[in-house]
Formats: sequence, structure tokens, C-alpha cells
Amino acid sequence: MSHSDPAFSRAEYDRRLAKTRAAMAAAGLDALFVEDPSNMAWLTGYEGWSFYVHQGVLVLQDADPIWWGRNQDANGARKTVWMSNDRIHGYADEYVQSTVRHPMQDLAALIADTGIAKGRIGVELDNYYYSAKAHLTLLAELPDAELVDANTLVNWQRAVKSDEEIALMQKAARISEHVTDGILERIEPGMRKNDLVAQIYHDAVTGVGEDWGDYAAIVPLLPSGPDAAAPHLTWDGEPFKSGECTFFELSGCYRRYHAPFCRSVFLGKPPDYLLRAEAALVEGLEAGLKAARAGNQARDIALALAAPLERAGIERGARCGYPIGLSYPPDWGERSISLRPEDETVLEPGMTFHFMPGLWMDDWGLEITEPILITDSGPAECFCNRPRKLFVKP
Amino acid sequence: MSHSDPAFSRAEYDRRLAKTRAAMAAAGLDALFVEDPSNMAWLTGYEGWSFYVHQGVLVLQDADPIWWGRNQDANGARKTVWMSNDRIHGYADEYVQSTVRHPMQDLAALIADTGIAKGRIGVELDNYYYSAKAHLTLLAELPDAELVDANTLVNWQRAVKSDEEIALMQKAARISEHVTDGILERIEPGMRKNDLVAQIYHDAVTGVGEDWGDYAAIVPLLPSGPDAAAPHLTWDGEPFKSGECTFFELSGCYRRYHAPFCRSVFLGKPPDYLLRAEAALVEGLEAGLKAARAGNQARDIALALAAPLERAGIERGARCGYPIGLSYPPDWGERSISLRPEDETVLEPGMTFHFMPGLWMDDWGLEITEPILITDSGPAECFCNRPRKLFVKP
Repeated sequence: MSHSDPAFSRAEYDRRLAKTRAAMAAAGLDALFVEDPSNMAWLTGYEGWSFYVHQGVLVLQDADPIWWGRNQDANGARKTVWMSNDRIHGYADEYVQSTVRHPMQDLAALIADTGIAKGRIGVELDNYYYSAKAHLTLLAELPDAELVDANTLVNWQRAVKSDEEIALMQKAARISEHVTDGILERIEPGMRKNDLVAQIYHDAVTGVGEDWGDYAAIVPLLPSGPDAAAPHLTWDGEPFKSGECTFFELSGCYRRYHAPFCRSVFLGKPPDYLLRAEAALVEGLEAGLKAARAGNQARDIALALAAPLERAGIERGARCGYPIGLSYPPDWGERSISLRPEDETVLEPGMTFHFMPGLWMDDWGLEITEPILITDSGPAECFCNRPRKLFVKP
Repeated sequence: MSHSDPAFSRAEYDRRLAKTRAAMAAAGLDALFVEDPSNMAWLTGYEGWSFYVHQGVLVLQDADPIWWGRNQDANGARKTVWMSNDRIHGYADEYVQSTVRHPMQDLAALIADTGIAKGRIGVELDNYYYSAKAHLTLLAELPDAELVDANTLVNWQRAVKSDEEIALMQKAARISEHVTDGILERIEPGMRKNDLVAQIYHDAVTGVGEDWGDYAAIVPLLPSGPDAAAPHLTWDGEPFKSGECTFFELSGCYRRYHAPFCRSVFLGKPPDYLLRAEAALVEGLEAGLKAARAGNQARDIALALAAPLERAGIERGARCGYPIGLSYPPDWGERSISLRPEDETVLEPGMTFHFMPGLWMDDWGLEITEPILITDSGPAECFCNRPRKLFVKP
């Protein structure tokens, strides 16, 4: 390991690898190929914006993982992963976005060299970056291997956070609060939306004290007025308007760990329907936080939230949360558990979620959310500490 | 179309659709399913950070394209695409990151409803987001369809830019210059790297005059000293040091159009090997710009660059550029043409590239790059206008 300031102890990586190997053994896997950049980083410490080309980590039962990627990124691997340099394998640049070659040809050769060309190898079938072509190429190049779906196998190992991880998320939460405070202070009618986003980025990357800010896996989302019916609009150069509600969904990020957080701001006097929605939403959030305790199920949070909303005549079609932690774009969710009525995952201490019951209606939207930690007993702890309400600026 | 300020005329979208349909006809396709968010936006105007769930555009020969995605994002589609609302199809939230359902089951039903369940349908086999599982699910659900690889079919239609597109790239270039000027003004030994990045984001999103800044498809890359051997490291909270070279690869972004640009800065007195590399690199860039003319091939640029570098004893293993324009994360390249010795694509007026001969050596790096436009005759035009050199701050 040559990282001058690694985010985690070696014991932490040993813990992660042991958990992953146990899950591999349970699935009868000889090896696991991980292309998800968040899983790569979680297992090895690998950092870098190189996930736009094929790369991955090959996890074995009886030897250290192998980092595999583009030659020029092997330099970044040598600087960031805990394994020794002989576990770093770069492929030639001629494979990159080629019309005649595919990087998976190189990976297949590496797998053969490792002696597992006839093995049972897990792959992340539904991950970004592990493309259909990557899979088809690997299948063709390894005719004697059995490639089995191990999608989210590593993601599930990430669900319960260690104390080292929770400490980073707490730092991320301080940044989320700092950014939100800046928004509340600065927003006013007539301010161009991008000018406020410029400040959001400034605060997020400056960080808090010695805790410098990293880029979040999703950019700030801040639709206003009728646009707030669309949860994933970003920003433009239009001014904030009096009489409109804007939600600010964003996340502080520290060493790739996130604490996504959202508050909504109304400029002017909010209409009654919005105040009623706020009241129901806050009641639902509080009920959900109480249900978010070890031993309960993921679905219990969703059901607790739904009751007061339904009483207010608000029907949400969408899940109301997902696990959070270490992430690379395009998602700060972990894609394992979903807070929805059909998810019976038992909640455990150390699990962390973005509890985010966004309301995206026909012509308005409202979001008040909390990043939460499941504790040993009692209701969930919120990572952020800001009033749980619709903010109003007259 | 309900976008209050669309980036393009309807004629521009008609042009794009006509080109794409011609390419589909040449490939014998009845339909084309496009999951690449850049291709989706290029064809329909769709905007939003929703590409972390499955979504796409179904292109047909004799009817308007169909936007397909998550129910909650259909609101965003209604606000941004040019097609009428009846061409927007949302799928239920229970398909999102489900352990028992896959969104492609819904897409298959839509394809069947469209009457092409037995058709020859192009898919983007090696695109981010079109996962292996997405493809396998579609294959299983559409047993009578022929799914054929149409990877980068749309990307190739994007290669020659219209005047409307070039105008947006020129605005992005003004932002790239503005950000670079801010770096040169502010960087100094002892400044924390993230504090400079905070300013970079501030300048990039503020934009220039009325031209507000959007987020770039890649975050700023700015490794220093020995870390500059690794092209894709981002930033941390360490201070800039005297005696170190840092490259700043970044892009202004306007309405999702990019002008990636890089200059390197040395703090203190640069060593001779770096000055020699700079001289060879600038000579190579200038030779490459002369070779970058309509009628020549992509490879001619790479070969022109290589000669002076080889004379200086510098061997680059990597391609030296790629097409640029409209992009969403994780890449601001278009993944069609590569500036490398084996690429014989004939250059045409209106093609745009990031000509980026990064030098990533064992323990140092240097990048001086230019976003360029192939013109009707003569050498390429540079979108940015800043001295082509290693900047030195004593």
C-alpha cells in the first residue's frame, strides 16, 4: 500500500475481504469479478475517475485480490490499493473503446493465468459498467468457466457499517449540514439558480475544518415550483421565484462516504396544500424513524411512513429509501435493500439509509429527508441535525 | 415539447432523427433501443440525473421515438423532450433495483405493444447502463426478436456537429478558459487542493455572463508531482507544494456540451526534463493541429504528434484524443473515433475532438491539451485560446 493517507486500517480491509469470501463460499464461487467502482474501492481502496473504461477487481479465496484495469490507471492503483504491486494488472491502451478488440479478452487471459478458467466465477450482471458486451465477451473467451450472477453480492456485505465507516459518514454529514445552512442563508427571489449551485459546490468541496470535501456521486438536485414534480432535474440559469418551493437534495462527501440530505425551501407564503403535506410528511418521517430499529424489517419503515401520508390523501408510488455509504457515480445508493412494503430485510445495528420520502406530485414536489443509522436499540439516529420542516423565507 | 427554453430547434432534432434512421436502415434495424443518456438527450432533449436506473429511448422508423423510464422520471421527460406526452412511457417503481423483477420486463411489454416483438432491434451492447442483465432479460422476454449490436450507432451520428451544437461548445470553451484563468491566478504553494477545486467549481457553475455553467461529465482531475503519473486521480486536502507540477484537466459545460481543456502548472523552477518534455509536447500538438484537417484520417493526428515526442525519447502508449460534445457521466468522450495510429476514420468539417496527448510517466506527468474543431480547409481550430505551454509560477 503506497497511499500516503489511507482512509482505512488494514484490519478494516481484512474484515471486508473475509465477509466477501464467506459470501462467495456460500454461493459456491471460486472467484468473483467486481466491476462496480464502489465495490472495487470498498475491497481494495482503489480511487480514481477511471470507471468510464472497463476495470475491476478479481477476488479469490486463497490469494490477495487482483486489480485489473487500463495500463495508465495501474499507476493510480499502485498509489491507492492495499495489495502489493504484483497484484496490479494493466491492459494495453489498444483495448480501450476499440472497434476490433475488447478489454474482456485481456481479463479472460488473466483469469486463465490465475488457473480458474474452468472455475465458477461470479459477475455483477446488473451493474453499471459491466456491460452486455463485457459479459458476452467473457463468456466467449472462457468457454469452460461457469459465469454466475453475483450481482450485489459485495453490496450486501457493505450494508452494516464499521465504526471506521460511520466516522467518515459523520464527517460527510457535517458537510451536508454546512451546505444546507449556506443555501438557507443565501437563497432569495431573483438569484440565479446556478449562482446558488456555485456556492453549494464551493461549500461542499471546501468541507468543514480539516475535513475536505470530495465530489458526491450525484450532483445537487434542486427543481423548483412545478419542476419539483420531477425528482431528477438538476439546475439552469433561471432565477428563484417568489411563490415557489424548491427542494435541495444533495450530499456532503468525505473520502467517498456520503450523507445525502434534503430540505425544501418556500419563498413567500406557502399555500395550505403544501403545509398540510409538510405536516403529514414530518409525521411520517417521525413514525418511520421510530420503526427504523434493529430487529424490525425494511418494510416497517415504509409502512410507518405511509400511514399519515395516506390519511392526508397523499399516495406515494415510490420506495422511500436505500442504503448509503461509499459511492461513485451515478448513484449514492447501495442497490441492495429498498425501503418498500415488500422488502423484508431485517434491520441490523450499523445499517445506514437515506430515508427519503420525496413527494413528487403532478405539479409540485416536496422533499424532507434524513440519512439514518440503525442503532443497537431504539429508533434510528439521524446523521444530520437540522430542523425537520419546510423552510420558509418570506 | 414543454421545455421553457429548449437548447435546440425542432429542425435540429429532425436532422438527428433522420441521420439515425438512415443508419438504422443501413443496418437493417426495425427499431433501436438507446440507453446511453447522451444519445437519449441528443435524440430527444431528455435531461435529468436519472441514468442510475434503467431508462432509454426507443427509435422507430415510422413514428416518433418513445421515451421509456421510471414513473417518477416521466415528469422530467414531459418537461424536456420534444415528443408529445403520449410518447412518454413510465414503468412502476417496484421494478427499480428489485431482487425479483427487472425493468426490461416492462420494456419488452412496450416493445410488444409497439408491434415489433418479432423485429430486428438494435441495442447498445457495450454502453454503460445497458447491463448484462438488461440484455439477458430482454432476450428472454422477446424470444422472437432479433437483438443485434448497435453499439455507438448513434454516437457515430453525433460525430459531425451542427452549427447549433458548435455554438454551445464555444460557450463551454469560454467557461473552460474562465476556470483555467482562475486556477492560474489562485494556485500557490500551501493552498489546499480542495480549496482550489472549490473555486474551480464556483467558476465553472457561475459560468460566463449569461451563459450559466452545467456540471461536466467528469470531475476536475488535478494530480500533482509523482501522482500526476496517474491520469485519473481527483483531489484531496493536501497542499500544493513548491517544486511540483500539477495538471488541471477539466471542462466547462454549457447545456451538456463540453470543451475539455488542460494546462499544467509548475510551482517553482521546473527541472530540465520537464522543459524538454514541454517543448516536444508543444511541437507535437502543433504538428497534430496541422494534420487535423478534413480529408486526413484520425491516425494522421496521432502520427504527427508522435514524431517529435519520439525524438525526445518519450513513448506514449495511449490514444491522444477522442470526439467531444454532448455528454453525461461517466465520460465526456463520445466513444466512436479514437486518435490512434490504427484509426482510419476520415476527418470531416464539423468534427470535434479533445486532442489530449497526456504524458503519464513513471513518476511525473504533463498535460497540455486542446479541444478542436475540424474546419472546411486548413488546420483545426482550437475552441480555447490560452497559451499552449507549461505555466510556471515562481
